[in-house]
Amino acid sequence: MNRVAVLGAGNGGLSIGAFLSLSGCSVQLFDKFPAAIEQIREAGGVTLKGVSRTGFAKFDMITTNVVEAIEGCRMILVVTPAFAHRELAETMAPYLDRGQKIVLNPGRTAGAIEFHMRAKAINPKADFVVAEAQSLIYACRKTGPAEVTIFKVKNEMALAALPATRTEEVLQELKPFYPQFIAAENVLETSLLNIGAIFHPTPALLNIARIENKELFEYYMDGITPCVSNVLERIDAERVAVAKAFGVKTMTCIEWLEDVYGSPHTDSDSIYEAVQKQDGYRGIEAPQNPFARYISEDVPMSLVPLAEFGRITGVPTPTMNLMIDLANLIHQKDYRAEGRTLARLGLEGVFLDDLKKFVATGTPLP
Amino acid sequence: MNRVAVLGAGNGGLSIGAFLSLSGCSVQLFDKFPAAIEQIREAGGVTLKGVSRTGFAKFDMITTNVVEAIEGCRMILVVTPAFAHRELAETMAPYLDRGQKIVLNPGRTAGAIEFHMRAKAINPKADFVVAEAQSLIYACRKTGPAEVTIFKVKNEMALAALPATRTEEVLQELKPFYPQFIAAENVLETSLLNIGAIFHPTPALLNIARIENKELFEYYMDGITPCVSNVLERIDAERVAVAKAFGVKTMTCIEWLEDVYGSPHTDSDSIYEAVQKQDGYRGIEAPQNPFARYISEDVPMSLVPLAEFGRITGVPTPTMNLMIDLANLIHQKDYRAEGRTLARLGLEGVFLDDLKKFVATGTPLP
Repeated sequence: MNRVAVLGAGNGGLSIGAFLSLSGCSVQLFDKFPAAIEQIREAGGVTLKGVSRTGFAKFDMITTNVVEAIEGCRMILVVTPAFAHRELAETMAPYLDRGQKIVLNPGRTAGAIEFHMRAKAINPKADFVVAEAQSLIYACRKTGPAEVTIFKVKNEMALAALPATRTEEVLQELKPFYPQFIAAENVLETSLLNIGAIFHPTPALLNIARIENKELFEYYMDGITPCVSNVLERIDAERVAVAKAFGVKTMTCIEWLEDVYGSPHTDSDSIYEAVQKQDGYRGIEAPQNPFARYISEDVPMSLVPLAEFGRITGVPTPTMNLMIDLANLIHQKDYRAEGRTLARLGLEGVFLDDLKKFVATGTPLP
Repeated sequence: MNRVAVLGAGNGGLSIGAFLSLSGCSVQLFDKFPAAIEQIREAGGVTLKGVSRTGFAKFDMITTNVVEAIEGCRMILVVTPAFAHRELAETMAPYLDRGQKIVLNPGRTAGAIEFHMRAKAINPKADFVVAEAQSLIYACRKTGPAEVTIFKVKNEMALAALPATRTEEVLQELKPFYPQFIAAENVLETSLLNIGAIFHPTPALLNIARIENKELFEYYMDGITPCVSNVLERIDAERVAVAKAFGVKTMTCIEWLEDVYGSPHTDSDSIYEAVQKQDGYRGIEAPQNPFARYISEDVPMSLVPLAEFGRITGVPTPTMNLMIDLANLIHQKDYRAEGRTLARLGLEGVFLDDLKKFVATGTPLP
């Protein structure tokens, strides 16, 4: 992947772009919003700090035109909020004609499916493969107008292509730069291990007043109390039940915390306890905007498709449904209408077995 | 009402008992919990401070035995949490044989109905009348081991007896001491104007983490933000729709705030705005216990019966239902099972018109 497109100039996109540039790639950076790239364009790139490579990372193109950005790139790394995936797929579809590999970092839930379905709807002959990472590989932040800092690189990151028979190709392409990516069984596994669906909307909604008051508090440490944890555990149990019904392996949220961050004790009885043991969560401040992406992205792009996957599998998801309804009430929105429903994904009426074949081998849906 | 029983030795019961004692009544005070009355018994009464009568108020009886407390009393003032009404009705039923007048201060929603039904179920020949006040007449607090302070006396307080044909009798008995009580049309009016159902459970649930963390914050001023207000307005609209379906007059929450507390401007577009204008709410601290009565009393005793009244009237109450479900998740309880459902009130399957006749004139339910 010598010439690579990085779509999204937020914390994640800038970190990935800078790392690849410092690793010898020619990076073409895109962001939809001129304000997001203005100062980076002036600098010609960004300074990368932190625990990975460091130094000034030049970008060979910095543009608000996605078609320009992907020109000549075999690899396209998407590092935008999930609600942008649909539009990107539609805009890029006519230009996806040479087997481009597209990786969503991350897909949230059903990102690869939505991208694939939209691009194919616009351009049925499109030739590409889309994959989704289970999460963002970095803990990172923009630390200056043209500066970004990587605080932590995750040791392992599950990734799956759609169909899963093509996962290995995508991994091989990423390997020289990102050996951390490992194969998940399929995109249902990555989509169902979306732990953001547990940790983002519910604590934000149950702390909405202090978030709206711009109170400074630690999101995980102070925001997830035993009472909040009671709700998180129910949502997590629903997610795990859906994964089981799909026959993909998953972890409980508590197991995931132990796995990803390591845990001094593995005997946590509750998500509350497990979170309190994760020093990695210490110091993470809550958002100061009640419309933050913890709700406005993770309700439509994580909870809605998880609950919809519940419908396909016949697994009830009353707690997820309740939190979606609560977000709708609090934000006066209809996050189902703008979220990843089965209808929007092109999966309404699809049977469990047909969906499993589709994500495994690409067998067209009936 | 020379000899009067006051049931409940909390803020409200002590204030009412002390005021009546200082007004020349012989007061018999009851509380179920020995700890609640121990120091009052040692003192022989309480010192009343504040804006009403002041001085040492002697109680002629201080007991944990409710049967003792009501002996020889024509008037029984109940000033307990609403979840105690049922048990009090059951315990007192055999002794309600001389037309005693019982006033619930307040009834929350359906308090008089529940008291009436339970007492009659235990003792079909019981002779009494039960009334409910729409709220507590005082803003008051226990300010010492045997001291209570009244900060504010409400100018007007709606009250209705069950049946409404007997409201006037109860008002006449109260009048020498409490001329503030005025007749509501019936107990549906007082029950449906339960503004605690709006202001108590929802803000507490949407601030549950900081309440559990014992953070000091102003419950109304900081706890009700525009986002929280969005939910309150939906619940209030459901309550008003139920009242309309019953044909009883009511007020919106915003009108109520203007009516009860007076308002510098009457043009509030939201409950948030209306609350911010109420100086009376300034300084009221949030509870520091996530299981506080704002949830544990007001969900089963206010929201549950309001939603159940919705069922009788055919008015949907999805937002109330959602908050009940959320409280159940957060507290790991089943507040419907322990709440004032139609079944528990003896009203399952009752028709709207029959209930209206019952509360108006006492016409037995079919």
